[in-house]
Amino acid sequence: MLPYKSLIQLNRDSNVSLYVQLCNNFIQLITNGTLKPSDILPSTRVLSELTGISRNTVKVAYEELMSQGWAESVERKGIFVLSKLPELSEKRKQTSIIPLKDQTESFIWNNPFSKTFAAEDFQKSILTIDDGFPDVRLTPVDLLMREYRSISKRFYGKNFLKYGDPKGSEHLRIALCRYLSETRGLAVTPENIIITKGSQMGIYLATQLLLTPGDKIAVGSSNYRSADDIFKHTGASLLRIPVDENGMDIDNLTDILQKQKIKAVYIIPHHHFPTTVTMSMDRRLKLLKLAEEYGFAVIEDDYDYDFHYNNKPYVPLASIDHNRNVIYIGSITKTFAPALRIGFLISSSQFTNACASLRQLIDKQGDSLLEEAFSSLYDTGEMERHFRKSIKIYKQRRDLFCEILEANFRDAITFKIPEGGLAVWSLFDKKINLKELAVRAEKKGLKIPDGTFYNNEVFKPNGLRLGFASINEKEIEHSLSILQQII
Amino acid sequence: MLPYKSLIQLNRDSNVSLYVQLCNNFIQLITNGTLKPSDILPSTRVLSELTGISRNTVKVAYEELMSQGWAESVERKGIFVLSKLPELSEKRKQTSIIPLKDQTESFIWNNPFSKTFAAEDFQKSILTIDDGFPDVRLTPVDLLMREYRSISKRFYGKNFLKYGDPKGSEHLRIALCRYLSETRGLAVTPENIIITKGSQMGIYLATQLLLTPGDKIAVGSSNYRSADDIFKHTGASLLRIPVDENGMDIDNLTDILQKQKIKAVYIIPHHHFPTTVTMSMDRRLKLLKLAEEYGFAVIEDDYDYDFHYNNKPYVPLASIDHNRNVIYIGSITKTFAPALRIGFLISSSQFTNACASLRQLIDKQGDSLLEEAFSSLYDTGEMERHFRKSIKIYKQRRDLFCEILEANFRDAITFKIPEGGLAVWSLFDKKINLKELAVRAEKKGLKIPDGTFYNNEVFKPNGLRLGFASINEKEIEHSLSILQQII
Repeated sequence: MLPYKSLIQLNRDSNVSLYVQLCNNFIQLITNGTLKPSDILPSTRVLSELTGISRNTVKVAYEELMSQGWAESVERKGIFVLSKLPELSEKRKQTSIIPLKDQTESFIWNNPFSKTFAAEDFQKSILTIDDGFPDVRLTPVDLLMREYRSISKRFYGKNFLKYGDPKGSEHLRIALCRYLSETRGLAVTPENIIITKGSQMGIYLATQLLLTPGDKIAVGSSNYRSADDIFKHTGASLLRIPVDENGMDIDNLTDILQKQKIKAVYIIPHHHFPTTVTMSMDRRLKLLKLAEEYGFAVIEDDYDYDFHYNNKPYVPLASIDHNRNVIYIGSITKTFAPALRIGFLISSSQFTNACASLRQLIDKQGDSLLEEAFSSLYDTGEMERHFRKSIKIYKQRRDLFCEILEANFRDAITFKIPEGGLAVWSLFDKKINLKELAVRAEKKGLKIPDGTFYNNEVFKPNGLRLGFASINEKEIEHSLSILQQII
Repeated sequence: MLPYKSLIQLNRDSNVSLYVQLCNNFIQLITNGTLKPSDILPSTRVLSELTGISRNTVKVAYEELMSQGWAESVERKGIFVLSKLPELSEKRKQTSIIPLKDQTESFIWNNPFSKTFAAEDFQKSILTIDDGFPDVRLTPVDLLMREYRSISKRFYGKNFLKYGDPKGSEHLRIALCRYLSETRGLAVTPENIIITKGSQMGIYLATQLLLTPGDKIAVGSSNYRSADDIFKHTGASLLRIPVDENGMDIDNLTDILQKQKIKAVYIIPHHHFPTTVTMSMDRRLKLLKLAEEYGFAVIEDDYDYDFHYNNKPYVPLASIDHNRNVIYIGSITKTFAPALRIGFLISSSQFTNACASLRQLIDKQGDSLLEEAFSSLYDTGEMERHFRKSIKIYKQRRDLFCEILEANFRDAITFKIPEGGLAVWSLFDKKINLKELAVRAEKKGLKIPDGTFYNNEVFKPNGLRLGFASINEKEIEHSLSILQQII
């Protein structure tokens, strides 16, 4: 007889009836080949003794097994595994629990991703200079909880648990209209907005509608890698346009447009990634004119707009584009908390409706409860109070961070004090190998980017974005002193 | 002079400085053509009187306007709109606020969606027989809130606000391993799981990796429309296989396989949509054998597994497939709340890792806070207690609903009492036009499906799924009495 005592695994604290668990155990033993066709099952008495389950429960489990077509009863002999079980596989394993660890499937699929993410990327304990994340310790979770409580107490509050609008909460879209008009002169109506999961989903949706394989999209010579990855995934090819201290070189773009058809241009005009430069107003206006002349879409990624320290950012291209050639993408994720993914895409109502249809295919809708809570935070002014508070703190951190860089890294790092955003674009002395530096830093308890995220086929700087926002002043001093030691 | 008093819109309760708002107002007036190149701006004194803003603030706003390159100061004459503003567009509108309502963009995009969703679909006030939704009034929001509070009090609680693993919370994946093993004999490790936004995202991710334009996928002659839409969006063609009372006709599938290459088969074996039939064990085993023989993937959509009233559902195909040809997709959304979108996809670790890479392109990651809260609800047994409680209530509602159908709709409706799920598949007498019925019902204050969602090019039943779960016993009696009146 098989060692049923060890083979059969039951959880008596579970809400699942023991007879169902027992039945499932036998199905596993049969399908993985431990029990073969025509094998006899232990008698109810024996199994009851071995497992401590009542004979009655065992009996019910056996009945279930027979009714599901795995076993049959032979009079006066006992219960047997069905003799005519279809051959499931020759690769049957001989263990009772087979975790699905390795790929043995016979179906064909193409993995388009060269690198799968590593789970270690998400370890959280170590001191980190990231590449420009917010400090979640500043996130007013208590305010969010208060909104949740308040919503769940309202008599219609449970409606936010139902299926909702794939364009997102209308309340939040109205709140954003007001906020965007006040902060950046962007005049839109709720129909022009779709709420997304962060700016990432905005770029994904827009690109899926705009680009087909073989199409061309113009992007900066240096550019945000996660956006490049989306564009490549559509099968489009990327045309790299030089970026200087005034943003994308529009004259260079003009030359290219005269020679070939471009479907879209992707820009981050407020603070280009990774170099943090701002696109000049002159170039913004030229780009809008080109968009009309050549009929392409401008994807304006403005995830960073709320972070500016000198109180005078340019209005976005979307605010001065009356031909509707700008698809404007923003985010509340960076300003509130990376894991609470709320962003928005702004365009014509036809385009946002098509985005909503695509979004329904992907995940139906957003989190209505969170969207409603965020709307209230905008309505009460708490959201903007939080922004102002964080920006004040981030400005102090930026100033301290840059002071130390200036004082102690003069030979090793070249940088400009960024006017906004959460990171300093730092060019390292050629003699410093950034990958090795990251390894050495980690040994000293400090995690820093290794630079690979900023490199592409044409842009290979010896540079890093050094995020100053997610660490407090003490941590800034500590981490930069580690960095100084190992440089 | 322009009527600045009405043209300029300021919000004094806003956190945005008045000078920034004023500056943005002028940029709008310039870019929409209300103010033309070389127009003079009102003096600071006049504007201050008209708007009630201090002269100093107006002055700062004008300086900002000039520094951004929109205006210039001419000595002793005043401040003027720049004379050499680039021509923005000939289509300039003459109103001060131009909502982006209509599509006038000059870029080209293809709308692949024949029908854009209608916002009215999401109205919530009316009595509704939906097509099988849960009752969100049963959702234990207080338990979720308790978990949120508990997480936010933990000293590492704020880590759930940071960027996280695109495969989802490891804690939740571990909890699911235990739960899936106990409830359906499915033995997997956390590496085999990716947490998705509902089962919808699971189907989307799997399909994007499996299907390329021109590929073939086999689906039921009747089938879940939202899945069909995903498949069509990939450019694959759908082969319709007949579905009878024992699920998909596997003999028919076998014939087709002998003639053509199929990349994947999509099934809902537990309760087929819309007809709620269960696939027999015999066909399940045959399908697994075919998958191995012909090398295709089985996409097993088991969103409905937790809803069964007779306590003996078959184990999923994934539990008896040791060749890893089944991609198993499930959902917690239906059992908890539709708007809190948590589902899972189970496959080899290679496949789930590729899903995670694709998911990073789409929206980076899920809501870590919600995932952590759900993990705790599984750990404490609250989740299963909630399931059991709901199922007891849904069973009562099903029984009452079917009793009334049996008693009062005998001539009009043919149906079988469903063993699980949240809806009764109801075939209506041929003489009853379902679209008209839905219109008549709505006039009486009852919303019902009109049947179009269940129709496709081969399946055109005169049938509806009538959801009994989201309405209580009084509402069931009320809504069915309305239905009886109008039939």
